[in-house]
Amino acid sequence: MKYGMNMLLWTTNVGEEHFPILERLKSMGYDGVEIPIFDLELEPYRKLAEKCDELGLERTAVTVCSSEANPASPDAALRKAGLEHINQVVDACAVLGASLLCGPYHSAIGEFSGDGPTEDERKWSQETLGHAADHAQAADVMLGLEYLNRFECYLLNSAADCAEFVRAVDHPNLRMIYDTFHANIEEKHVDEAIRTCADVTCHVHISENDRSTPGAGHVEWDKTFHTLKETEYDGWMTVEAFGLALPELAAATKIWRKMYTSEDQLAEAALKFMKSNWNA
Amino acid sequence: MKYGMNMLLWTTNVGEEHFPILERLKSMGYDGVEIPIFDLELEPYRKLAEKCDELGLERTAVTVCSSEANPASPDAALRKAGLEHINQVVDACAVLGASLLCGPYHSAIGEFSGDGPTEDERKWSQETLGHAADHAQAADVMLGLEYLNRFECYLLNSAADCAEFVRAVDHPNLRMIYDTFHANIEEKHVDEAIRTCADVTCHVHISENDRSTPGAGHVEWDKTFHTLKETEYDGWMTVEAFGLALPELAAATKIWRKMYTSEDQLAEAALKFMKSNWNA
Repeated sequence: MKYGMNMLLWTTNVGEEHFPILERLKSMGYDGVEIPIFDLELEPYRKLAEKCDELGLERTAVTVCSSEANPASPDAALRKAGLEHINQVVDACAVLGASLLCGPYHSAIGEFSGDGPTEDERKWSQETLGHAADHAQAADVMLGLEYLNRFECYLLNSAADCAEFVRAVDHPNLRMIYDTFHANIEEKHVDEAIRTCADVTCHVHISENDRSTPGAGHVEWDKTFHTLKETEYDGWMTVEAFGLALPELAAATKIWRKMYTSEDQLAEAALKFMKSNWNA
Repeated sequence: MKYGMNMLLWTTNVGEEHFPILERLKSMGYDGVEIPIFDLELEPYRKLAEKCDELGLERTAVTVCSSEANPASPDAALRKAGLEHINQVVDACAVLGASLLCGPYHSAIGEFSGDGPTEDERKWSQETLGHAADHAQAADVMLGLEYLNRFECYLLNSAADCAEFVRAVDHPNLRMIYDTFHANIEEKHVDEAIRTCADVTCHVHISENDRSTPGAGHVEWDKTFHTLKETEYDGWMTVEAFGLALPELAAATKIWRKMYTSEDQLAEAALKFMKSNWNA
């Protein structure tokens, strides 16, 4: 098992000013960090890769798609823009040395048609992601698609649907991720959900029911860890939490309440929690 | 304890065509029904009251506020429109014979400022609700304010905040409701949440984590029922579930997946579930 921390708790754009945070995460015992790739300029990722190599921190990455670059859009030009966005992010992953790109980039985040996903939308997104997976394979990056709860997207809202989507694309560089926050809202039984998608799961987000300190809330952790072991999951466990530090991200993730003491305290408690549960 | 079923599973506007559903709910053993009051024409509520009286079904009611009639708006005209809306709904409750009006009408549903609630917004909403409570008192209707999860509103997202809001207004006809669906997303510990607001709670919504059949998912039901007993809750337990039957409501509640067999089956299973847990 590898333990990671998503940098979105501190920033949407990791720069040299955040190097002290990387140092602290390394000294806490994290194996790696998850880097948001929203900005597509490559040079900062090169510097970041050097710093992480120096510290001995591995990298995964996360991105999203917008309405202007939507892999599931009926408009072919928007799907093409979606593919180009993912491909550019994959190129940034290669520079960063990130082995995996996770996120809900099957469709535009926060966009709703007012109805469920159509067969066409699924097909369009699958085609786009198939092409993206070709590009990712060439760059030696694994794509890990993330389903979100119903309030954040409508194309993929459950483990079963996301697994079916990934199996339909049937590409060695397209897998999915399981996120405990979304599962808490969408899955009747989290153990069944984990089993349903185990064969195509390449990454796990550890995220509390209120998006704050993992272990401080009521996600069904015992069942979650037990089933991940039972299904022989052996990838990353990466903490995803959000706070009030970034107004735009707080607005997007709808975080208004201060739910933890400090970012460092959250990161430290989360790592201890994951390790003690995994080694129990 | 009284057991109720929210009619939003079938319709946003209960009319004579729904009388057979009321008959079935009565024969299942429900004590009452929760009636959506979105349409403000009074005559249909009079007919509905007659039918329910004939069947021996009590009534509660539910409404929402929109951006055009928002009790928390900085614009005094919109707050006035919000108060007028609530007052009109209270008048409809009186005609319907509904003892309680629940819902998130402290603010506009689905409206976001991109930031947390301001002190002014709280104060404006408290003032509006104080006036509404005066009107409700004259009509012998209890107001039960509902907090919603972060994705549906931003003024009140937790039991603690909602209880503090109600205590600040300090009016005998303003209380709050506890909803298990919103608590599953927002509360670290549902038992603590129930205790925090017990002194001002007048109504409970029994709603599964995925909004479908209560008891079929993973809301912490044992803890929930145990703590409601411990705090001597003795009001309604009203089932709130949503389905795909109503395109506009499905769009508003973001329901895309069919998560239960049939509406009647859900209602029947939910009643059995509530009674067996309460009497355990």
